[in-house]
Amino acid sequence: MVQKNTNIRLTLPVVCFVWQIAMIILFGVFIRYDEESDTHWVETKAHDNITSDIENDFYFRYPSFQDVHVMIFVGFGFLMTFLKRYSFGAVGFNFLIASFGLQWALLMQGWFHSLDPQTGKIFIGVESLINADFCVAGCLIAYGAVLGKVSPVQLLVMTLFGVTLFAVEEYIILNLLHARDAGGSMVIHTFGGYYGLTISWVLYRPNLHQSKRMQGSVYHSDIFAMIGTLFLWMFWPSFNSAITDHGDGQHRAVINTYLCLASTVLTTVAISSFSQKTGKLDMVHIQNSTLAGGVALGTAAEFMISPYGALIVGFLCGIISTMGYIFISPFLEKTLKIQDTCGIHNLHAMPGVIGGIVGAITAAAASESVYGKQGLINTFDFTGDFKDRTVLTQGGYQAAGMCVSIVFGVAGGAIVGSILKLPIWGDPADENCFDDEVYWEVREPEHQESIPPILEYNNHMIHKRQDL
Amino acid sequence: MVQKNTNIRLTLPVVCFVWQIAMIILFGVFIRYDEESDTHWVETKAHDNITSDIENDFYFRYPSFQDVHVMIFVGFGFLMTFLKRYSFGAVGFNFLIASFGLQWALLMQGWFHSLDPQTGKIFIGVESLINADFCVAGCLIAYGAVLGKVSPVQLLVMTLFGVTLFAVEEYIILNLLHARDAGGSMVIHTFGGYYGLTISWVLYRPNLHQSKRMQGSVYHSDIFAMIGTLFLWMFWPSFNSAITDHGDGQHRAVINTYLCLASTVLTTVAISSFSQKTGKLDMVHIQNSTLAGGVALGTAAEFMISPYGALIVGFLCGIISTMGYIFISPFLEKTLKIQDTCGIHNLHAMPGVIGGIVGAITAAAASESVYGKQGLINTFDFTGDFKDRTVLTQGGYQAAGMCVSIVFGVAGGAIVGSILKLPIWGDPADENCFDDEVYWEVREPEHQESIPPILEYNNHMIHKRQDL
Amino acid sequence: MVQKNTNIRLTLPVVCFVWQIAMIILFGVFIRYDEESDTHWVETKAHDNITSDIENDFYFRYPSFQDVHVMIFVGFGFLMTFLKRYSFGAVGFNFLIASFGLQWALLMQGWFHSLDPQTGKIFIGVESLINADFCVAGCLIAYGAVLGKVSPVQLLVMTLFGVTLFAVEEYIILNLLHARDAGGSMVIHTFGGYYGLTISWVLYRPNLHQSKRMQGSVYHSDIFAMIGTLFLWMFWPSFNSAITDHGDGQHRAVINTYLCLASTVLTTVAISSFSQKTGKLDMVHIQNSTLAGGVALGTAAEFMISPYGALIVGFLCGIISTMGYIFISPFLEKTLKIQDTCGIHNLHAMPGVIGGIVGAITAAAASESVYGKQGLINTFDFTGDFKDRTVLTQGGYQAAGMCVSIVFGVAGGAIVGSILKLPIWGDPADENCFDDEVYWEVREPEHQESIPPILEYNNHMIHKRQDL
Repeated sequence: MVQKNTNIRLTLPVVCFVWQIAMIILFGVFIRYDEESDTHWVETKAHDNITSDIENDFYFRYPSFQDVHVMIFVGFGFLMTFLKRYSFGAVGFNFLIASFGLQWALLMQGWFHSLDPQTGKIFIGVESLINADFCVAGCLIAYGAVLGKVSPVQLLVMTLFGVTLFAVEEYIILNLLHARDAGGSMVIHTFGGYYGLTISWVLYRPNLHQSKRMQGSVYHSDIFAMIGTLFLWMFWPSFNSAITDHGDGQHRAVINTYLCLASTVLTTVAISSFSQKTGKLDMVHIQNSTLAGGVALGTAAEFMISPYGALIVGFLCGIISTMGYIFISPFLEKTLKIQDTCGIHNLHAMPGVIGGIVGAITAAAASESVYGKQGLINTFDFTGDFKDRTVLTQGGYQAAGMCVSIVFGVAGGAIVGSILKLPIWGDPADENCFDDEVYWEVREPEHQESIPPILEYNNHMIHKRQDL
Repeated sequence: MVQKNTNIRLTLPVVCFVWQIAMIILFGVFIRYDEESDTHWVETKAHDNITSDIENDFYFRYPSFQDVHVMIFVGFGFLMTFLKRYSFGAVGFNFLIASFGLQWALLMQGWFHSLDPQTGKIFIGVESLINADFCVAGCLIAYGAVLGKVSPVQLLVMTLFGVTLFAVEEYIILNLLHARDAGGSMVIHTFGGYYGLTISWVLYRPNLHQSKRMQGSVYHSDIFAMIGTLFLWMFWPSFNSAITDHGDGQHRAVINTYLCLASTVLTTVAISSFSQKTGKLDMVHIQNSTLAGGVALGTAAEFMISPYGALIVGFLCGIISTMGYIFISPFLEKTLKIQDTCGIHNLHAMPGVIGGIVGAITAAAASESVYGKQGLINTFDFTGDFKDRTVLTQGGYQAAGMCVSIVFGVAGGAIVGSILKLPIWGDPADENCFDDEVYWEVREPEHQESIPPILEYNNHMIHKRQDL
Repeated sequence: MVQKNTNIRLTLPVVCFVWQIAMIILFGVFIRYDEESDTHWVETKAHDNITSDIENDFYFRYPSFQDVHVMIFVGFGFLMTFLKRYSFGAVGFNFLIASFGLQWALLMQGWFHSLDPQTGKIFIGVESLINADFCVAGCLIAYGAVLGKVSPVQLLVMTLFGVTLFAVEEYIILNLLHARDAGGSMVIHTFGGYYGLTISWVLYRPNLHQSKRMQGSVYHSDIFAMIGTLFLWMFWPSFNSAITDHGDGQHRAVINTYLCLASTVLTTVAISSFSQKTGKLDMVHIQNSTLAGGVALGTAAEFMISPYGALIVGFLCGIISTMGYIFISPFLEKTLKIQDTCGIHNLHAMPGVIGGIVGAITAAAASESVYGKQGLINTFDFTGDFKDRTVLTQGGYQAAGMCVSIVFGVAGGAIVGSILKLPIWGDPADENCFDDEVYWEVREPEHQESIPPILEYNNHMIHKRQDL
């Protein structure tokens, strides 16, 4: 067996330092506080006749922002701790790439969405922070597909390009096509899912079975993963409502997501139990498929999909996602050579596509009788250049957006995957995958702590016998 | 030993599927967005002269809702992970029954509390979601008493009836008796506690000692349980204030609960330490009794109980609850044949009753001089049919509400317990209680992961010696 | 080896009981609801022409308060669980001393900051709760230095004096010097850091190596610690903005802290990787140094430090803090005889001092052209007695505040350390440090649970051989 060189003592520090310095310079040139976070807000208030500080966008969005923030760092991070010996990498590298990604996202999204033409500056506020976290989510999804098989340097490269691609496809989908996608079924989950899957396909490892001993979970690692699952599940209503319209928009998105996710849990349990001989549940399904409903409502959460509509979406997603883990993942690995560590195809890619379709259909089916005249305009933002767009056209553009996100995911993943294949990034050998010891100081093996008393006795017995 | 049939491959999926489909149909018929979450909100605003979106109830209650949501899924779920090998069941089944329960609760509470007589519809908003979570809490409390001894199908049945009973007793207590109980000392904790204890009593297992090896905690499972404890403890102020009056009502409920819980921690530690020969603390007490103050302030949190009053309630509850674990739980098990896995009698039932009494007394002692004329009316909602009620009468009705919750808990528990006794639910044999292997695929025993290196050495030694 | 008497069966319960009763009495005499949490709020609203309940301070600060609350109990508590066998003590004693400390803080801070001269009462609201949590944070930081080496009684004594000293230095810095320190770089972190370090210095244990086997982490304890790290990291924007000005003040503090912390993660990873032969990362650095940026922006978060300024502060802090763990901590222990279990010098003391300096410089460099005339007055509160203060003077007073916090930390720590040295507090012997068994009932050693099957086989083999 050829030992690969996993020494990242130069590459990792250099990448971190240089990129962070670049961020500082670019922020210095481009990023400024927006008017609601600037000390001149007192003048803005007087000028705009705003009577109370509470009408600052901060108070509309900050609680949701913090929930989203928890999803990014604890949710995604802990969801991936399920492997028996890759929890440091799961939660630690997630931490690293999210921290870099959100800075780069503020710049990329700023340039594409909110660059002020007069001053050449990007003005940021709480909504920008949420969008940056969203952008990062796409890359963290992709991380799930390659978990345990790449080096942190590769992850940073993947994030750099991922955020860049994200900002472009987001610009096309939301601004040019004027599709709605507040919770990111298309923009975040479909893109992120296919981006990660394609990278994993390019980086296919035929001899991955050599690290079989490190795959799978142990009892405690499965419980750690449930921390991730639950924080994602509980805060998903905040995710889907974080940047929707003030008032009824946020309110409705929360209700829809809350209901949809509850429904998903029941069908996930049903399929998981039915798939085993004696009806036993599988932690993999509970940890992942229960979340599929939140993904699938990312586009339609702010629409008048109605409470039972949300339940139906959740119902179907629980089934499809769990089936995915049982049938599709093995097929992808054997036939298509896609090794998807966390099963992001079942949790993000597929439900994302479903979400895009649900969004297109519900948009096309929207009507003034249900939404009200002004409600329809508000919900789909039929203003400015788009004030004459019909709901049917809107449905078409939603579907087009869906395709854009898939194309960007697959094409982007292919290119970035090829870059990551270069033998310079310090990725682990096949037999060392899924092992924290490669990139982390793992001080003391657990067994030394938990065994001594009895083992000492054993050794003692053995030594005594040797003395005979 | 007769092996019981714990195969739930048919029952669990069927129950999940059928019930979820029933939910979808009933939601289709009954549930609609309320006016603050409907796209017509823009018209409502104009009509009601509401100047800012921030006056949508969403912004008053959403942060508290999310805290309550965390308590339900992470709080209750992780609190029950303390058993060494039942953490999957604790956090997983909690997840399942809460997800079902909240849907059913929206319907049941809707029918009883907010069915619109004209349209025959139930209009839901963020407050409905909070109430649904509250309703579910009652059933999760009951789960604590039977943890490890029942099948997930039994838990679903328990939740179906539990939510139904909850909605009825809540209607009687809050609407007919017009008692106040914002944090649910009576409605949630007393009812849930006695409901679970009575079920446990009906399902008494004389040979439970056969699974003795699975009872108790291990080091790491106790730390997981502390995650549950702390999130319950920290967010309890949100629980008790989530549906209280806007403004001072929510504000005051938070202050009272915050103080009360702090006080509980100190007396819990005191009694726990004093109960052991060398003053060592017991994790069971720290995990549970520290929360009793929150339970006991569920009714009075919104009243002018005054800061030191809140401290006194917490002081007493820490003592009583810890004493309960030391003296009453063994008595309940030996003499009354009530096997209470989590000690919900000490954490919910008893403190709930204390809370009901505290509520009755503080209501009866309320006065215009303390509350102000309008403050008194607002706090006790002395409007409409109840505008002439005196505080003394109110105190009496509070006490009556207390009794209703106990009666519903005990009678309901007896009936539901009998149903759960039928030999069709797939519950585990006495020697398999508290064991995740019964209902979960437990992939790889932890020891296989943690021992090899040294053991291999040992085996090596042994084999070498055998070669001699 | 002389076994020390660690029996705390009398001292701990007595201290808890007596102090809690004292709290009740003092609260009865002094503490009342403020006007926004009192039922008379309805009258206040009418009197002050407040049109909506949402303008109650509760809605401006409650979400931040809950985040801070999580930081105090889960953040600090779990951050300290990294030791292999001191997780109960970490999370449990943290729980205890925070619960006592926040009560005492409400009184101490009330007497110094908000005692109403007419009524002799302290009126509390949500901002008081935040400040009490802040005050407690100082003592929890100090706990980090002595973790594993002191008894819970000592911790309570340390908290009693710590809160007292805190209230005084806070009064001097914020009221007399009129320095700004919303996130507490000086008041909380510098004070708490030096307070703890000095106590640890006084309590120096030359033979601490005798408990070497209990030092360091195991795999799972490092993951538990990451729960603490992440909740601190994610919610630090709430910490630094919780009591800043409504509107743009809170908004800006959040943006600055969010950016600063992201930057810190990258340089922490860089230095950590570079410090090891093969570039492996060290969990100690990831768990701690990633937070240094939040500490260092505690003073300046509300200023117009500008986004790139925040990134620079984070950049430097990641480097300095990680270097601290690598170079300074060993130096402190060997040369200065300061045993700092959690490395609070690198996470709190040093970054706190940096934060004070950053605050002084950015205050001195503030200008009307950047802040606007009214913005400058608002940000630095140049009103009343201080309406003629210049930014340069302000910078000077900021620096003076810095010195006050160090002096209070060191002097206070020296005195309190001497008190804690008395041989009456039940602290553990050198060979029993960092061991939960001293103060906790640890029911069942983990190895008994995880090993049996294979070991039994082993024993069996051995016995068989003995029979030969």
